[in-house]
Amino acid sequence: MAKLSLAEAQAKAEAVLMTHKTSAANAKSVATALVSAQADGLGTHGLLRLANYAAQANCGKVDGFAIPTLNQTAPSALIVDAANGFAYPAIDLAITALVPVALAQGIAAASITRSGHCGAMGLAVERIAERGMIAIMFANAPAAMAPWGGQTPLMGTNPIASAFPRPASPPVVIDLSLSKVARGNVVAAAQQGAAIPDDWALDVDGKPTTDAKAALAGTMLPLGGAKGAALALMVEAMAAGLTGSHFAFEASSFLDAKGPPPATGQFIIAINPALFGPGVSYIERLFTMVAAEKGARLPGERRLANRQKAAQEGIEVQDSWFVGS
Amino acid sequence: MAKLSLAEAQAKAEAVLMTHKTSAANAKSVATALVSAQADGLGTHGLLRLANYAAQANCGKVDGFAIPTLNQTAPSALIVDAANGFAYPAIDLAITALVPVALAQGIAAASITRSGHCGAMGLAVERIAERGMIAIMFANAPAAMAPWGGQTPLMGTNPIASAFPRPASPPVVIDLSLSKVARGNVVAAAQQGAAIPDDWALDVDGKPTTDAKAALAGTMLPLGGAKGAALALMVEAMAAGLTGSHFAFEASSFLDAKGPPPATGQFIIAINPALFGPGVSYIERLFTMVAAEKGARLPGERRLANRQKAAQEGIEVQDSWFVGS
Repeated sequence: MAKLSLAEAQAKAEAVLMTHKTSAANAKSVATALVSAQADGLGTHGLLRLANYAAQANCGKVDGFAIPTLNQTAPSALIVDAANGFAYPAIDLAITALVPVALAQGIAAASITRSGHCGAMGLAVERIAERGMIAIMFANAPAAMAPWGGQTPLMGTNPIASAFPRPASPPVVIDLSLSKVARGNVVAAAQQGAAIPDDWALDVDGKPTTDAKAALAGTMLPLGGAKGAALALMVEAMAAGLTGSHFAFEASSFLDAKGPPPATGQFIIAINPALFGPGVSYIERLFTMVAAEKGARLPGERRLANRQKAAQEGIEVQDSWFVGS
Repeated sequence: MAKLSLAEAQAKAEAVLMTHKTSAANAKSVATALVSAQADGLGTHGLLRLANYAAQANCGKVDGFAIPTLNQTAPSALIVDAANGFAYPAIDLAITALVPVALAQGIAAASITRSGHCGAMGLAVERIAERGMIAIMFANAPAAMAPWGGQTPLMGTNPIASAFPRPASPPVVIDLSLSKVARGNVVAAAQQGAAIPDDWALDVDGKPTTDAKAALAGTMLPLGGAKGAALALMVEAMAAGLTGSHFAFEASSFLDAKGPPPATGQFIIAINPALFGPGVSYIERLFTMVAAEKGARLPGERRLANRQKAAQEGIEVQDSWFVGS
């Protein structure tokens, strides 16, 4: 363990990527996303991912030199081709293009195709909300969950994220995957030989299991049962179907450096609140009530506290994260 | 109990509304929504609601003579003022206006304000998908759920609905509320003196309860715990905040004929799939996989079977539903 300032971590992460078949521009975008997630305390989407990303670029599973392209197909419709590169530069391009279009049109969306692991989506929608627009984002991921009643994983854990501008505070950011728990919890239990609750996953026969190893061979359960499975189907249809990307059931893993590009998709909607109603000061009444509720807090509050601490004190990193450096 | 053809039920429902301070045009819209829900087997949003709707119009809680108005504030942005009338005529207006705008612009949305109970939202998004557009809809409802960790109900059970066109089949329709179970299940348990599972609701002190009466005095629990509560907050911000409608915590009940109009809101997004990717034939690959999965089915299949049966055989109705007729 060592402590680095955010700028030091950024430079170190960029250097690792650039020695692993990645352009300087893409390295900067990817490192920014990983360091930002790390600073926010979102460790599973932070610098822990760097070694894997570098290995994926090195073997060509991800094209580290890809240049994402933008195509406006209609006044409010953008398509971004991530060209089987990292998702982050494509998301950067989509955000930059989306905001002025949504501002003028009222609502606009960007379809991102031939993309990949998009990390902490809350960071992406937050940037749109910082520019005054409401954002909703969907992404798909490699197969992990079966349709309700089935046994074959046809959908990813498929996150939904959303962000809302506030008049005098950082945006409210909602970011959640649709599995009941993250798969990492099952991996950890399997490593420790611990049992898992029987509502986390199914075994290969589609039966609830408390055996973590059996769960890893089976499928994750969605949050909220049949309703969560239906939401995951909606996200799969939006993020992969609408964008023309690989569905969960045909996407390669985000976690190894083998096989073809994952080629999954993202779909981002940006909305100008001033054109659909009284605007952000009105929405703020809701956030004020929630923030004032005893025992409750607004989504993202802990993340912002982590961010502030990281900016002041730096972040703890492990040498093993910076392979090749 | 009696059996009526759909046309007979429609005429009878319209007649009830028209004798309760409702215009012929609004009676037609409302009756169509209720009869359609009934035919689809969605009884809780069907003709059971008619007597209450008629009483609400009669006492002026809902303005049965309201004429919803449309304002296009930007190329892709529509605002519909339901004018404290029934939600259905406002939704009809929004759908009719949205589809051609989404077709040309790629994406468009309608904010519906000063609205009310919008019943089976799946029926609304389905109509957009029947015209070739993907639809996503959010609505808020009177206070029933607390923010995660809190005790005060600040959000409704807040449904999300979505519909996807298919090349050669009726649309796939997803429609779900974000409470773990419908409040009606708790009402039924309280009437029967039965216990409820401890993950359905909290008592007034914010503690899990198996006492249905204590649950009715407390708050409903969201599906999926903190994640579901975050989704309900997102829907509240979209459906009430963005549209400038009453938040859950200030809306009057949908279920009685007392007090001011509920004045809740809806937000509907329509998307032209041809402008964001390869289109509906590509999305269909996902639906084909899900439909073929043993034990699973596509959302809405049971509803379509009910609909076909109702068209052929009519629907069972109760005389008590048609008050004043």
